[in-house]
Amino acid sequence: MTFLEKLRAAVDLRGSLVCVGLDPELSRLPAHLSRTPEGIVRFNRTIVEATADLVCAYKPNLAFYESLGADGHRILVETLAAIPRELITIGDAKRGDIGNTVRHYAAALFEQLGFDAVTASPYLGGDSLEPFFTYADRGVFVVCRTSNPGGSDFQDLGVNDDGVTRPLFEVVARRVREWNRRGNAGLVVGATAPDELVQVRALAPDLPILIPGIGTQAGDLTAAVAAHRAEAPAVISASRSVLYASSGPDFGAAARRAASELRDSIRNLRVA
Amino acid sequence: MTFLEKLRAAVDLRGSLVCVGLDPELSRLPAHLSRTPEGIVRFNRTIVEATADLVCAYKPNLAFYESLGADGHRILVETLAAIPRELITIGDAKRGDIGNTVRHYAAALFEQLGFDAVTASPYLGGDSLEPFFTYADRGVFVVCRTSNPGGSDFQDLGVNDDGVTRPLFEVVARRVREWNRRGNAGLVVGATAPDELVQVRALAPDLPILIPGIGTQAGDLTAAVAAHRAEAPAVISASRSVLYASSGPDFGAAARRAASELRDSIRNLRVA
Repeated sequence: MTFLEKLRAAVDLRGSLVCVGLDPELSRLPAHLSRTPEGIVRFNRTIVEATADLVCAYKPNLAFYESLGADGHRILVETLAAIPRELITIGDAKRGDIGNTVRHYAAALFEQLGFDAVTASPYLGGDSLEPFFTYADRGVFVVCRTSNPGGSDFQDLGVNDDGVTRPLFEVVARRVREWNRRGNAGLVVGATAPDELVQVRALAPDLPILIPGIGTQAGDLTAAVAAHRAEAPAVISASRSVLYASSGPDFGAAARRAASELRDSIRNLRVA
Repeated sequence: MTFLEKLRAAVDLRGSLVCVGLDPELSRLPAHLSRTPEGIVRFNRTIVEATADLVCAYKPNLAFYESLGADGHRILVETLAAIPRELITIGDAKRGDIGNTVRHYAAALFEQLGFDAVTASPYLGGDSLEPFFTYADRGVFVVCRTSNPGGSDFQDLGVNDDGVTRPLFEVVARRVREWNRRGNAGLVVGATAPDELVQVRALAPDLPILIPGIGTQAGDLTAAVAAHRAEAPAVISASRSVLYASSGPDFGAAARRAASELRDSIRNLRVA
């Protein structure tokens, strides 16, 4: 099964484009959970158990595990083990380095941790992404237009591309599409940049798009849903608004409510 | 002591601009060492002990530790513990994400692992680098022009910057200089791009430059040395050509010879 087939199957199975970012912050864990590796695993597993029938994907961001030091790797492994196999796991790592080095990141993320997909940075160019693309059954979402305020600093600069001036993020989208020889490339575009999302979808109609920035970052859900294509899904990701919907012992139920509301809002927008 | 002061002190103490990349590859370890965490730590520590009086810095690339799975973190911690405190440790991580996430990468690299400096990716813009810059006593080398063939894919594109067309890497160098409010920013420019290195040095005379690509990647050592400034050093990094100078039990002595030759070649070029 190709990555795109697995992604489409997960979307169809759940009837949901929702992805939950599993980004545990010690300072925001519900008060009754211990600030220990076991407490964090329990938090993550509760979130997964409460939302697994509502989502197509989970997206742990590696930073939140690396900051936990020596225990981080084990916490991530135990979290991943709780995710049903029919759903997509996205290692949000945004790695980018020269090819010989990226081979090792690919081994870490695809082989050691077993992610179905990763996020990767485009700045080092095509040969730096190739070691990820080589894993033909895994997905590679290349960062294109990000959801943060500084996303415009470089990504929106006008670039001379074959005699035409385009914003850099559009050139990235075009190149990634060209480099997609194995059908496993995707793009990352933040929902806080709705106009750019329209542009990227027009340039890359056949690539799945991972869309973070929904929830706390207040991205545009209508634009995110409009970027969905049955053959190349929009994976719409929320983290903090789901994880920390309650800081009490009911955090699992509250996360479920938040994920369910997001799924339903997306469904209503798809029907409309 | 600021990062730049610590870097200059290490350069002066050793009379050396050499940095050794500590990037252990299981498949290339000397045959007599065991393919275990202990074997890798022994390899790294032997390299450090054999070269510590010849270099100003060590640069472990995180990818090579992450690909070792659960043991990678401990191997890295035990490797770092062997590096003399007066030398600079650079966590070659090339991380880049939105601010809330980069806070966690900064905690992982500066607090948990205790690196003196990191490498970071510019693609997400100024606010994405700020959580690194906030650690005023640590260095942040922002990736500018890389040593790989695909380095030109995006980095060399002509960009409209305030009405003037410049290659993207030059815009990155200019912005990083502007963002350097705490005096702890640097740039990464590969030695395989000697003309670009001249340009970057002209644009950023006051920023230290980390220059990989010497040795196996066959970068231009003369250009690398010419980029050195006493107040803003060039840190010239070699990895494979030192680590794997011999695959026999004499690998430490061979690494020492390779590092010593590189230090002396640099010295001769500085005098010339």
